[in-house]
Parts: sequence; structure tokens; C-alpha cells
Amino acid sequence: MCGIFAYLNFCVPCQRQNVYEILLRGLERLEYRGYDSAGIAVDYPEEGVHIVRKQGKVKMLRGIVFDIEKAEYSSIVSTHVGIAHTRWATHGEPSERNSHPQSSGEDNSFMVVHNGIITNFKDIKQFLEKENYTFTSDTDTEVIPKLTHYIYHHTEEGETLTFPEVVERVISQLEGAFALVFKSTVFPKQIVAVKRGSPLLVGIKSERDISMDKVNISYRQRQSSGDDRAFNEGGQSAEYFFASDASALIEHTDRVIYLEDDDITSIVDGSLRINRLQKHAKTDETASRQITTLRLQLQQIMKGNYSTFMEKEIHEQPESILNTMRGRIDFSTDTVRLGGLISHASAIKRCRRIIVIASGTSYNSGVATRQLLEELSDVPVVIELGSDFLDRLCPVFRDDVCIFISQSGETADTLNALRYCKSRGALLVGITNTVGSAISRETDCGIHINAGPEIGVASTKAYTSQIVSMVMLSVMIGSDRISKQKRCTEIVQGLKELPDLIRRVLKKDHEILSLAKELYDEKSLLLMGRGYNYATCLEGALKVKEVSYMHSEGILSGELKHGPLALVDENMPCVIVVVKDNTYTKCHNALQQVKARQGRPITICEEGDSDVQSMSYRSFSLPSSVDCLMNILAVIPLQLLSFHLATLKGLDVDCPRNLAKSVTTE
Amino acid sequence: MCGIFAYLNFCVPCQRQNVYEILLRGLERLEYRGYDSAGIAVDYPEEGVHIVRKQGKVKMLRGIVFDIEKAEYSSIVSTHVGIAHTRWATHGEPSERNSHPQSSGEDNSFMVVHNGIITNFKDIKQFLEKENYTFTSDTDTEVIPKLTHYIYHHTEEGETLTFPEVVERVISQLEGAFALVFKSTVFPKQIVAVKRGSPLLVGIKSERDISMDKVNISYRQRQSSGDDRAFNEGGQSAEYFFASDASALIEHTDRVIYLEDDDITSIVDGSLRINRLQKHAKTDETASRQITTLRLQLQQIMKGNYSTFMEKEIHEQPESILNTMRGRIDFSTDTVRLGGLISHASAIKRCRRIIVIASGTSYNSGVATRQLLEELSDVPVVIELGSDFLDRLCPVFRDDVCIFISQSGETADTLNALRYCKSRGALLVGITNTVGSAISRETDCGIHINAGPEIGVASTKAYTSQIVSMVMLSVMIGSDRISKQKRCTEIVQGLKELPDLIRRVLKKDHEILSLAKELYDEKSLLLMGRGYNYATCLEGALKVKEVSYMHSEGILSGELKHGPLALVDENMPCVIVVVKDNTYTKCHNALQQVKARQGRPITICEEGDSDVQSMSYRSFSLPSSVDCLMNILAVIPLQLLSFHLATLKGLDVDCPRNLAKSVTTE
Repeated sequence: MCGIFAYLNFCVPCQRQNVYEILLRGLERLEYRGYDSAGIAVDYPEEGVHIVRKQGKVKMLRGIVFDIEKAEYSSIVSTHVGIAHTRWATHGEPSERNSHPQSSGEDNSFMVVHNGIITNFKDIKQFLEKENYTFTSDTDTEVIPKLTHYIYHHTEEGETLTFPEVVERVISQLEGAFALVFKSTVFPKQIVAVKRGSPLLVGIKSERDISMDKVNISYRQRQSSGDDRAFNEGGQSAEYFFASDASALIEHTDRVIYLEDDDITSIVDGSLRINRLQKHAKTDETASRQITTLRLQLQQIMKGNYSTFMEKEIHEQPESILNTMRGRIDFSTDTVRLGGLISHASAIKRCRRIIVIASGTSYNSGVATRQLLEELSDVPVVIELGSDFLDRLCPVFRDDVCIFISQSGETADTLNALRYCKSRGALLVGITNTVGSAISRETDCGIHINAGPEIGVASTKAYTSQIVSMVMLSVMIGSDRISKQKRCTEIVQGLKELPDLIRRVLKKDHEILSLAKELYDEKSLLLMGRGYNYATCLEGALKVKEVSYMHSEGILSGELKHGPLALVDENMPCVIVVVKDNTYTKCHNALQQVKARQGRPITICEEGDSDVQSMSYRSFSLPSSVDCLMNILAVIPLQLLSFHLATLKGLDVDCPRNLAKSVTTE
Repeated sequence: MCGIFAYLNFCVPCQRQNVYEILLRGLERLEYRGYDSAGIAVDYPEEGVHIVRKQGKVKMLRGIVFDIEKAEYSSIVSTHVGIAHTRWATHGEPSERNSHPQSSGEDNSFMVVHNGIITNFKDIKQFLEKENYTFTSDTDTEVIPKLTHYIYHHTEEGETLTFPEVVERVISQLEGAFALVFKSTVFPKQIVAVKRGSPLLVGIKSERDISMDKVNISYRQRQSSGDDRAFNEGGQSAEYFFASDASALIEHTDRVIYLEDDDITSIVDGSLRINRLQKHAKTDETASRQITTLRLQLQQIMKGNYSTFMEKEIHEQPESILNTMRGRIDFSTDTVRLGGLISHASAIKRCRRIIVIASGTSYNSGVATRQLLEELSDVPVVIELGSDFLDRLCPVFRDDVCIFISQSGETADTLNALRYCKSRGALLVGITNTVGSAISRETDCGIHINAGPEIGVASTKAYTSQIVSMVMLSVMIGSDRISKQKRCTEIVQGLKELPDLIRRVLKKDHEILSLAKELYDEKSLLLMGRGYNYATCLEGALKVKEVSYMHSEGILSGELKHGPLALVDENMPCVIVVVKDNTYTKCHNALQQVKARQGRPITICEEGDSDVQSMSYRSFSLPSSVDCLMNILAVIPLQLLSFHLATLKGLDVDCPRNLAKSVTTE
């Protein structure tokens, strides 16, 4: 996830430094979407484009923007274009050259800021390299300005394309998800923006009342003169802002248009026009985009419709999981291709042992996927807590593969364990959400989970994306064996449906709220499961602990009779996960035991399991999926439960007491 | 641990079936000491000895005793000798031929019942086999009657030994712990009993008032006539009962003598005489044994001075741990010799991986010793919960060693895991407290922890004996390497001192009681530790859960910052184990964190650690030992705490709700 911001003032005189200030302020608002590097590009008609890019947070960028060329900044300009970007790396480590805006080449004639992932960028890059384009970054984005440049210069004889027409041809070649803003020295004072999958909206600031206006959609790129489909036709003074979300706009204007996929939005001569790809002409239901008025507070907008980051991130999971899979799974052939592991895949397949090392929620994601990794690799898998692993000074060997899972990539215990394993010659694999983090730098290879920045201290979307990453890793290892083919195919098909299934689970949030209302005064909560869902209970209990401060504990239901069953009576609330995998009968037994001790079991089961439902005091049902993916669905009601318990107790879920987002000290 | 009972009526006519009834009743009282097989031997002067032995509980023996020869039972006898035994196997599986009484040979001229372990039985057996003795059992005990037979028949020319003199020569050859009762057809109507390490007492029933009597000790075996050192000199009618503890005597008489080590007690011609080995003559402080009067209730006696089996078993740990080590550690050379593993030791040393599989408390003992086993074997060690291991269908290979820990040896999940591993060709090692149990039968080799029967449902002494067994196993593996010599020696020296250190900890029971009085109304309890003491916290939490029904949880203190720290505030009681091993600084950090969150930490630390004590709300100090043995000392205050919490809440600790002693179903 990255943040895009762009600004165009048309006939609105202002000092140049104000343009910079607006761009930087926009990025600062969007920084929660990514903060490993940032950059801006502003028109300087005489000398091309002024580009400043910097690794680190936006304040690093601000530092150097205002350190140079101060004399220039006070000059007045009446029309000016600037684009800006704050990055959360997915392809290429955080660094200046990988920062956006990315450029078409040395003359910077086309520049682009991008949020999303271009999955076919390697094919395009190959094509462009043959055409003598030289690439200077490791990003997927760089193909876009270069392709734009290529298309602009390779028209049929006599044909001249407008800026939006060029962009239309560019995006017809792109696969993946994106929101893009283009600027060009060839088309000065123009800007074109387009989206597919990633969010983008335009803010409009005008002196006249535009609150009831709408912008009609056109399916033809070239407009006849006097066309009334453009907004501000004729060119009165106006300011336009493009941003990934409304939080960056609200301080400038409350008039916005939410763009739709394949809307090609252009500002030419001060007027805004929305064209769409011809292919949508038949299916589009509306022929215009309404200019709407933002009514929300700044803080609220940053969190979308949610009151807290935690809630937002829980509800983001259909998208974050899709981002984790994007470009890595080919659903037409049911194959997984993990770019970051390819060069080490054969070494991983022939190892003697896999050690997964992590802490907290990341540890639980290891527990959740251990069984599948063992099944598909036929290699013993050990899951270790980073701190305990170091205390014990475990034997580690050259033929071991060590996988380190950490959202931040900076977890101290995990990082220390990594260095310990490195010194023993093991192959190191990192699974993090932060490209360029210590763990991603110091491992031999890895998977970036692409879940986007996680702001809430209690990890939610990173957990499910970690599981999906480990599942993909398992499938990659297993897919080489004919005997595992069927299983791998089944899992990939399951992954494909997963975002929709998560959406279905999230829709039943009200059921969890009602459960939370009943439970929030309790002192203790037990969560029981086994097999794939042991981790679900550990993670659910951790979430409840973290944000609601209720003493909750995840218990392997196979261990119930070895002690914990003594805790069960009519007062102890027990959540039991019973899904139809190979542990179903045994989980059912646990349910019966709890029932026999006058417990009031709250079950999480599959839809239509009336047997379990009838034995439950309360029951939450999940849509069915492949056994090894059910734990992704099953954890969501528990994430929601912890959120509601805390909220009902009046606690701040984003900043639970005593905890920090990432634990970078031992 | 076994139970011994013997009965001699002198000139007290009674029906033979009464003799049987008395013997069987005695065994039934002692059955808590062992119940895997039982046997009795009674004089039948005309036809030798009547011997009945049977695998199983005493009621199985009762069944066959009264099924046969009923006609005989009604005949009246005035003087009669019978010895009886209920067994808890240590050497040789429970079976008829391994039951006691054990015999000198086909003529059964000498018969013995034995409680304890003869550590040098193999040497004696070798000697006797050369002398053409044929052994029919796998017990250590069988050497005793055969050695008695040999000594009786191999005197110097013209020398004739009395029964006590024979026994004196026998025990001077024995090493280990024992309580023994001998009878012989060569010395009809006589009985000789002796003890060293194991308990034994004599009950006396007489028509005259003997409550103030005492029996003088003699250091010469052969008495001059008219010697006043004997009790009942001259032979008035009397009945004598020998038993392992008073519970078997109280229904017959309340007049008893507690025998001391090396007291050779004989009944000859109806009079009781106590001789002692000459070597004690100079050091003995008293020259007599007082006949004391039992004042306790039957139920109380069975539990010793304790109100419950759990408390008794907690306080038994200095002895139970000594029994675990007995005959296996030579403290003069600091070497460990585990008889049950010797034939597989080299295979264990060269394995690729050790998998420890267990459930509940046994699992925790695996966690407690994982680090040491890794350190001394240099082989990766994985600890698995039986049920989870089976759910996951883990990969297991021929070069794996799988260790199964179970007190009962019948735990269903562990047993199923054993069979799963067997089918994959791994080497199987059992660590149980029950010889002849399924796990001890189905493994390739193993260690019998010799802790004696554990009656309390919450396991206490078995846990510490399991740890000691695993420590001995680790030392056995490590002792072959020169680089590990120093460490092994240090550990063996630590083991030597351990029983005394445990006694010191147990003496501070009152401190724990006072702590329990403060805590017993709390809803929750957190226990934190790491390294060797992570297991201590898991086990302490399990004990508290099991018997006091308080929601307690063991937390790896390294994981505190990854979530659980949110639970800590001024209301949440936290126990923190901070001992001076390689985790000391980190545990100290955890203590500071808890302190910083207004927590009131209850610490378990080493004596003299004033730094930790000054930071603690309350502190319990332990004597120092080797790092890997501190967890044996540290768990004891937690065992006591769980006991007191439960008792203060008025709960039955021996039979906690919802739980059974051994979980033989999945």
C-alpha cells in the first residue's frame, strides 16, 4: 500500500513554495499508508522537472525540499502541476532510486506515481529493454512511465494522441492493481489519473458553487469542441487535488469525486474530464460521477468508515489477502510463483528440517501453517518462540531452513535468532510486511506479505496475510510432487474464493457485537480448538488479552482432560472451534465434555452444522473452505470479538496499555 | 514403592482362613503403595508352603485364595506364619512370576517379601548363577531368598546359624533400599524382618499391658538363655504384625515399634528380639526401641501426617527423587548408568532428532528438560503434545528417537502417538512410573521413574521424578563426550544434593500458606519465567488450574511484550521466577516491566538475591543448585501454592472436578 497525492492549480496564482507545502502536507496525511520512502516531482518549465526523492519518512523529504533552491520558492506561478508519493515497498527495497515518482528516462518527459502492484511488469520490462530502454530501479512501477514514453513515440504515421489517449493505451497493457497519476513535460499543465483496484479520488476547489454538479462520462477520448461533458469547460480558475484517500483532501476542499475502476480522469486546460474504456459502455449503470461533499472529520477519514485502525484493518482483510496473493498465484493454471524465493526453491525443497521462528501473533501464524507445511514438504517443521530459541541455544545445522516471520521485520528476538542461525550456515527465509526491514535485508530470500501498513498495535490483517504467505510457500514446495498435485490445486482454488468468504464473515459483525455485549464483563475466557485451529485459539486469546485486558487463554482441546477441564463450569465462557476437518469428531468430543460440565459453549462452526449448533449456547457459522484455510476465516470473529469487548469497555484498541506496535528490544 | 505385610500368631488358636483374611486385609490397606500384583505365602507344615500370587489388584488375589482348598481353611492352628506383598513394579513387568513372595527355589525353603530396590542385584545374580541357582523372575528381589539359601547351606564346618544370623549375613551383601520380611521352612514358626531406607514397623497384640514396654537392642546375635533383651521372653501367647505402614496395623493393635535401619527383628519361640549390626554399636544413641501407641485415624495413617495424598506426595519428593536415582547414579565416579537403556544407548547417541511426546504434566517435564537434552546431545529436540502430534500426522523417520513420558504409562494420546511412531521405524523410549504399562511394554527401552504410586489426581512427585529421569538420560548421552564431562559432573553433584535442598524448600511451606491466604480469592494468576523455568510456570499454572479452579496461565516472559503485558496492572497477581542462570538479566527485565505497570510481583528467586527481593511485593527464596535442576526446586512452592489455594477454598485436591488420574481415552 502506498499513498498518492497530486496537485494542479489552474489560474490560481501562488508562491512555488506553497505548491511544495501542499504536496508535502498531502503526503503527511497519507503516511499511514506507507512510510519507507517518499518523493515529489514539480514542473520547472525552463529546466524540465524538479524531482526530490528520499528514503525514509515524509519529514526526511521535507528536510531536503526546503534545504535547496530557496530563492526559487518565492516566485509566483499561476498554473502548476506536482505529483507526490509516499511508499510502502513491495518490489525493490526502500531507497532513493526505487522511490516514486518514477520516470520515463533521462529527460523525465513522463512521470508516474503508483499505488498497487503491476503483476505483468516483467514481460513489459523485457519488451522495453529490447527497445533499448534502460531501467534504473527495481520497482514494478518503472515500466509505466517508460511504456507511456514508448507509446507516445510509436503512433501510426500522422496520428497524434492526447495525454488521456496515451494513458488509455498504456493501461490496456497493464495487469494487476493500480492507482496512477501521470504528468508530462510534453503535455505541460495537464494531469491524467486512472485507477483499477486501488483507491483514488479527486478534490475540486472552485470559487463557484459546485456542490450539486456532476461530471458526465464519455467513452470517446477525443471531444468535439463545445462538449458539455467536461467540468469547468472553458477554464475558470480552479484547483485540483488527487489522493489515495480523503484524509489528504479535507483541509483543502470538501468537494470530491470518488473515481471508479478504468475511469481515465484528465485535467486539460483547467477542465476535468472523465473518459472510460469503451468496453464498459454497455454495462455502466450511471453515465456520470457525482461531486460529493465530505462530511467526516479528518481523523475519521484516515480510518475510512471505521472508528479505529484495528477495526479498519480487520475489515480490510479481503483486500489485504488479495494483495498478498496478487501476482503470485495464477488461478488459470493453479500454480504459485513466489518471485522472492525462486532462486532458493530447490534448496528449500531438499532441506532436512524447517524451523519457523517468530514471536506473538507471527508465532501463531507459524503454528497455524505448521501442519500444511509438514504435509506438503514431508520435512519436520518446528515452531520456535524467538526468545526461547535463543535462551536454549538450539542446535542449528547447514541443512536447516529457518523461516523468520515478523510484521515489522524488526522484532528484536526474531532478529537475534536470525543472526544466530546465520552464523550456523542455515538458509534464511524472511516473511515480513516491511521491505527493507532488518529481517528482509539479512535473510537469503523471502516473501513480502504485501498487507499494507498495519497501524493498530494488535495485529490482524498481517496475521491472515502471514498465513496466506505460508500457505503459498507450502504449495510452492509441494507442487513439484505429483502426489501432492491434487491437494495443491484444491488449496489454490480455496485461496481464490477466500476474499469473498472473508467478506461474508465480516458481514456478520453484528452477531459478534451481540456476543461481546454478553461477555464484556467476564473475567476470563477460554478458547479451545485443535489441528489447524489450535493457532486460531492462541491468536484469538492473544487479541482478547491485548485489547480488552480480559484473561483469555487458548487451549489445545486435546489437552482439556489433562487439566484445563477443571476450570470449566457454568460460569466460565468457552469458545470452541469445531470445523469439519480431520479433527471434527475429537472437537465434537471436547464440546460434549464442556457441555457435560454445565459449560455454555460458544461455538465457531461451519454453516449448516446443525448438530454442533444445537449443542451450543451460542454459535457463529463460517462458510466452508479447504481445511487448511478455515483458520483464516475462524480467526476473524475472534478479532472482531476482541475489538468489541475492548470498545464496550471503553478502551482504546489502537493503543492498548503497556504494548508497542513492534518490539525492537529484547 | 510396594507394600509388605506379615502375620505371626503365637499360641493364639484361630482358623486358617482367618490367617488368610488378616493377610489380605493388610494388603488391601497398603494397596495405595502399589497395586499391579500381589501375593501371599503361608505355612503348611505337611506340604511345604502355600503360595498364591496374582497379577492385578489385591481383590484378584482374594478371588483365587478363597476359590481353592476351602476344606483346609476351617482347620484350627495355634501358631502360624504368613507373609504378603502388594507390588508396584520396578524390575520386571507385573506378572505372577515377578510377584512376591519370591522364593529360594523349588522347595521354597526361604521366602521373602521386599519393598525397595536392590541396586547390586545383577552382581549377586551372576554369582548365584555360577553356583547353579536358576532364576525364574525378572525381579531384583529374587536374589535375596536364593542368597539366603546359599548362605544357610554354606557355613563353616560345624557352624550352625540361627535365622537372624543368616539374615544378617544376607543383608551385609545387599546394596540399595529395602524393607524385607523372611520366612523359612527350615525355621518354622519364626520370622525375621529387616529394613534399610524403606519403612517397616511391627505391631504387637498381647493380652497383658505392654504400652510402656520397650525392647532392648542387642549387638550380639546369639543370646544367652534368660536374656532380658527379648520381648515376651518365655513365650506367652501373642500376635505379631509387620507392615510397611501403620494403616495396615491399626485395626489389629495400636501398639507398634517403628524399626530403624539395620534393625534385625526376629520372632523366635514367640518372643521378639531386635539385633543390630555390630558396626552401629558405637554410634547408636538409644539402646532400645519404644513400643508406642498409635493415636491416628486409619485414613490419616494411610496418608501419613498429611490430610491429602497430594500434600503427602508433594512432601514425599525428597524420597521419591532419591528412589528415581537409586542404583543409577554412582556418586563416587559421577556416572549415570540407566539399566533399561544400556542396550540402546549407542543408537540414541547417534540419532538425528529426538521427539519427546507427552500430555499434561508429563509434557511440561519434557519442556523442562529440552534445553539440557539439546545441550548434552547436540541433537535437535522437539516436544510434542500427543494429541496435536497425531492431528498433524508429523513426519517421523527411522533415525528419530521418540521419547514417551507418561506417569500411568497408559495415556491414550501418548500411546497412540507411540504406535504411529513405531510404524515409521523410530526408536521408542518410554519414561513411565508403571512397569508393565502399555507404554513400557510397547517401547524398545526406557526408564522407570520409581516415584512410587501417585494417588493424587494432580501429579506432583511424578513430575519431579520425570525431570530427574530426563536429566539422567541427558547426562548418559553427554557423558561420552570429553567436552561435556565437566558439565555432566556438575549436574551429577547437583543431583546428589537435590533431596536435601528439596527438604529445605518444603520446610518453608508456611510462607506459601500465608501467600495462598492472600491470593485465594483472586480470579486470575499469571506465572512468568523463561529458559529452564518456562516449564515451571506451565506446570505451576496447570496445578493451580487443576486443583484450585483459578484461571492461571504460564507465560514465557520473553513473550510478555508481544501481548500478555496488557493484562498486567495493580490487580493482577503475577508470579515471576528469576534465578541466576543465563536468563537472569532478561527475567530481571520482565520483573521491572511488571513493576513499571504497577504490578505487585511475587518472585521465586535464589537465597541472598536481595536485588530481586527488594523489587518484589513478596518473595520466596530457593537454595541454589545447578541451573538445569533449579526448576525442580522452583516448582515445589507452586505445587504447595496450588494445594493451599484449593484447601483454603474448601476443595478436594485429590479428586478435582472433571478430571481423572490417567486419561486413557482420546
